Amino acid sequence: MTGKEIAFTAVGIVRSRRKKPAHRKYSDLISEIVINKELAPALDHIEEFSHIIVLWWIHKSHRPAPMKVHPRGNPENGLMGVFATRSPDRPNPIGKSTVRLLERRGNVLKVQGLDAIDGTPVLDIKPYIPGYDSVENATAPPWTRK
Amino acid sequence: MTGKEIAFTAVGIVRSRRKKPAHRKYSDLISEIVINKELAPALDHIEEFSHIIVLWWIHKSHRPAPMKVHPRGNPENGLMGVFATRSPDRPNPIGKSTVRLLERRGNVLKVQGLDAIDGTPVLDIKPYIPGYDSVENATAPPWTRK
Repeated sequence: MTGKEIAFTAVGIVRSRRKKPAHRKYSDLISEIVINKELAPALDHIEEFSHIIVLWWIHKSHRPAPMKVHPRGNPENGLMGVFATRSPDRPNPIGKSTVRLLERRGNVLKVQGLDAIDGTPVLDIKPYIPGYDSVENATAPPWTRK
Repeated sequence: MTGKEIAFTAVGIVRSRRKKPAHRKYSDLISEIVINKELAPALDHIEEFSHIIVLWWIHKSHRPAPMKVHPRGNPENGLMGVFATRSPDRPNPIGKSTVRLLERRGNVLKVQGLDAIDGTPVLDIKPYIPGYDSVENATAPPWTRK
């Protein structure tokens, strides 16, 4: 396997009242994603979707990433491989959040439920497509339901 | 907005019978994700999940990315902003696929339904968590159901 760099640049930035990472409830949190102005036309028709997927750079993650972590930082959860968790401290710190799209104004998306802090660089915006992004009857271990 | 580079390196590679991109059915396709050997411990406990999310570099995408595209390459679908589609040709070409995890052997994941071609660099593996990654009653325009 090569160690060749794969480079991206931010397409936008998160504006949120949430200023630092925490294991906290954020499902009601309303924030904004400010897309670079020149990319505003790339958002056209996104308001036809109720939900979007946001990929973002977890720019405050700890480096180097640990190989194993306690899910949600809770020692009761046992030590798991980091790929078996949603820990922000992972080899490539890319966050993936599915959020409700409340409004689009030009290059600004108002969303609900985004667990990325203020100032987070955004990598991609995708529409959430039921049936493609969702799985019926998927199973997961008990810690994910705590 | 800064143009600062955000750099990642592949954590693995896709091994698939699918050798080039196409608008084709792949839901039954079985392929392998070969994770870099030194990262094998980071997969521990992933077999407790029925499905995983794969983030990958769409390394064969066209540059520069267009601002608008016809979803699924079909002119009947009209021109949409690229962020309102799942086109591989997007500002940061990162693919996101949810696939069934059939088996884990050491550093190799056998999966079903991965729409990434042979040789694709893998950026991240995440467990699919029902309720976090899925949305009930999400809505999307008709072209997504064609």
